[in-house]
Formats: sequence, C-alpha cells, structure tokens
Amino acid sequence: MTMKLHCFAESGNAYKAALALELAELEWEPVFVDFFAGETRTPEFRALNPMGEVPVLVDGDITLSQSGVILDYISSKTGKLGGTSADERREVLRWIFFDNHKVSGVAGPLRFNMNFLPEAKRNADVNGYMAARLASALKVMNTALADREWLVGNGLTIADISCAGYLFYSEPFTFERADYPNIDRWLISIAATPGWQHPYDLMPAPTVGQDLRS
Amino acid sequence: MTMKLHCFAESGNAYKAALALELAELEWEPVFVDFFAGETRTPEFRALNPMGEVPVLVDGDITLSQSGVILDYISSKTGKLGGTSADERREVLRWIFFDNHKVSGVAGPLRFNMNFLPEAKRNADVNGYMAARLASALKVMNTALADREWLVGNGLTIADISCAGYLFYSEPFTFERADYPNIDRWLISIAATPGWQHPYDLMPAPTVGQDLRS
Repeated sequence: MTMKLHCFAESGNAYKAALALELAELEWEPVFVDFFAGETRTPEFRALNPMGEVPVLVDGDITLSQSGVILDYISSKTGKLGGTSADERREVLRWIFFDNHKVSGVAGPLRFNMNFLPEAKRNADVNGYMAARLASALKVMNTALADREWLVGNGLTIADISCAGYLFYSEPFTFERADYPNIDRWLISIAATPGWQHPYDLMPAPTVGQDLRS
Repeated sequence: MTMKLHCFAESGNAYKAALALELAELEWEPVFVDFFAGETRTPEFRALNPMGEVPVLVDGDITLSQSGVILDYISSKTGKLGGTSADERREVLRWIFFDNHKVSGVAGPLRFNMNFLPEAKRNADVNGYMAARLASALKVMNTALADREWLVGNGLTIADISCAGYLFYSEPFTFERADYPNIDRWLISIAATPGWQHPYDLMPAPTVGQDLRS
C-alpha cells in the first residue's frame, strides 16, 4: 500500500521525510495540509496527530509524526540511509537530535518569523536572538564537515537529510551559504544525489510555494 | 567499568541522562563540567565533544552526546525504560524528539535567559516569545496526559524522563505547575519513582546549585 505523507512544501520538517522517502525509493504520495489556513489546529488534524504538526506519515496502520521518528522508520524499514554499524547509527541519531534541538528547531521558527508572519508582528530582537543561536549551531556543523564529505560515515544518511532540510530554502532566514563553505559544498553533494528534488518540487504548495522556489 | 557522565547540575539535558542512569540502576559517576566558567568552549572539551554540549556519556570506548542518544543507549543497553513493543519504542522516540524540538529546546534557553544571563542582557521580547512557544508545547503535553498516567504505555519510560527534565527546576522560566494539572500529577508520579532524585542532588554544582534547590 502506498504510504501517505501529510505535508506542505514550505515545511522543512516535512521535506526531510519526503526526501528520505524519495531517496529510499519507497512508494509514497503527498497529502496536502493547508497549514497557512490553520488546518493543523483543526480537531480533524489533531485526531490524526495530537501534536498538531506536519509531517505525518501513514503506512498501513502505522501513523508516525516528528521527522526524526519518520526518518528512523524509513531507514529501518529499507535498510538504507542509516549508517553501516551500531556506532554509525548512534552518530546518525546524534546529528538528528542536534538538528531538532539547534538547527531546524531554530531555523524553522526564524524562517517563519521572517517570511510568513505578518510584518506588523515581526520582532527584530526575537529574530536577532534566533539568528545568533542558528549561527552557533551552523558553525558546529561547518566545522564537522571540514574534513569529511558527509556528517556520518562514507555516504549520505538521514543525518544529512535532517540537518540540511531547511538549508535548501531560498527565503531569507540569515543563512548564507558563502558564510559556511563546508556546508555549501555538502549541500551541493546532497543536491547531486540521484533522485534529489527541491522541496517546492517534491511537495504540494497551492498557495505560495511556486513563487518561492529558488 | 563505571560509566562517566560529564555534566553540571543546572543542565536539564544532563539531568535526563543522570536520572536515566540512576533509574536503570547502572554504575556511573559524574564528572563536573564548569559550564559557567566557559569549559564547554575550551579546546579540551571540544576534543571530547565537538558539539560543545553536556551531557557527554563515556562508557568504555563509546562516547555519546545529545541526551536523546544517551537515553536511547541506556534503554537499549539495559532493556529498561524503553517501552514494551516496536510501536511503543517509536512513540517513546517521538516524545523525545518533541521534547528536544519544542519543550527542552525552548525551556532550556528561556531558563538560562531568565536566571543565568546578566540582567543587562535580558530581553523581554525574546523571553516573551520563548515563553509563548513553551506554553504551546506544554499544552500539547498536558492534553496528552489527560487520560494517561505516563506519556507512553503503562510505565515510566525515557520519554517521561526527557520531557520532564527541565520541569523539576525551581528557577522561574514561566512554567507554573498549577497551569498544567495533568503535568503536575505526572511530575508527582515521576518524583515518587524509587531512586528518583532532584537534579541538584544528583549532579555536582559547586557554584550556585545548592542555593537554587527547590
């Protein structure tokens, strides 16, 4: 049965799941969630996911949310993208937690604040604080990538997919590739992987997506 | 060989690891990290953990960081605190990601800003923004706990330990137990578990810890 991913193109967290499904060569289809119209706050959506978040992956009678769990599930189910030893798998999980905690967990809200929040509600102090936190995390990633092509082991894993999720979006959120040359080179490698697609090509966004494509 | 946990008492993320080690009845000892004197930014500490964070768990030749990875390791090593089926283990991981992303990932910086940052650097807009994000995540947790004693399954798991980590600290960070009655009841259950200890009793804090105990 074809898996269903509840998602929308602007969500970097949904993109991680969609890209992993695609690169693991699984059969899946997107189900559009109209986040900007408030769909994730409806009782219907909360019945699907009480956490009120995308992505949600439905595979038969298994329903999963949180991108890190979905990435782990895709990797476990297919034996792909998860590293080649117990040590590597722990290292993969470590980077996915680092991403949730300090990269996507900050880049997501910051990008939202700077692009999708009404201008009157934007706050320079808040965004400056978030930008400094994001820069600190990206510096750790840039250093880690100084002497390696991928975050873990010798190939693309869900650690790379998770940490890169938000970094392919072109809306401004204070991340400039030129400031992080190792991250820049790594993003080029990820985008060169057969099957890679930009988030706005991989997921539906009837409202604003196509206008925002890089 | 006794495991070593590099930690300091004020860190909720370190507390999660320390409490799980204690409740899983493992032999461990704390190694004090003088975070407030800048130790996590030294080359020596970065050699131990390039991410520059506590906790770090050293078990023989295995060195782990990120509390979520350490919790998963403790549970896998002992067969304790991790749920009783594949479904439960995925659900446990989901809550740990939710915690990193939205509970501890916000409560940690907010508590730091409100208590440990010099007063001149505190910013009401930033803290108000973080407080609103934290309240939103705590509301999801409070709702999830409305009809269940533990976050996953029928007993305490590392999901509870992760999500509760910061909530036992008494320094103000806008969390009031009275606002979240199901969380309050759940914290009482966790604290009643044999072996439970308050973070300021479980980890070293020569500088300020003992003064801050609730």
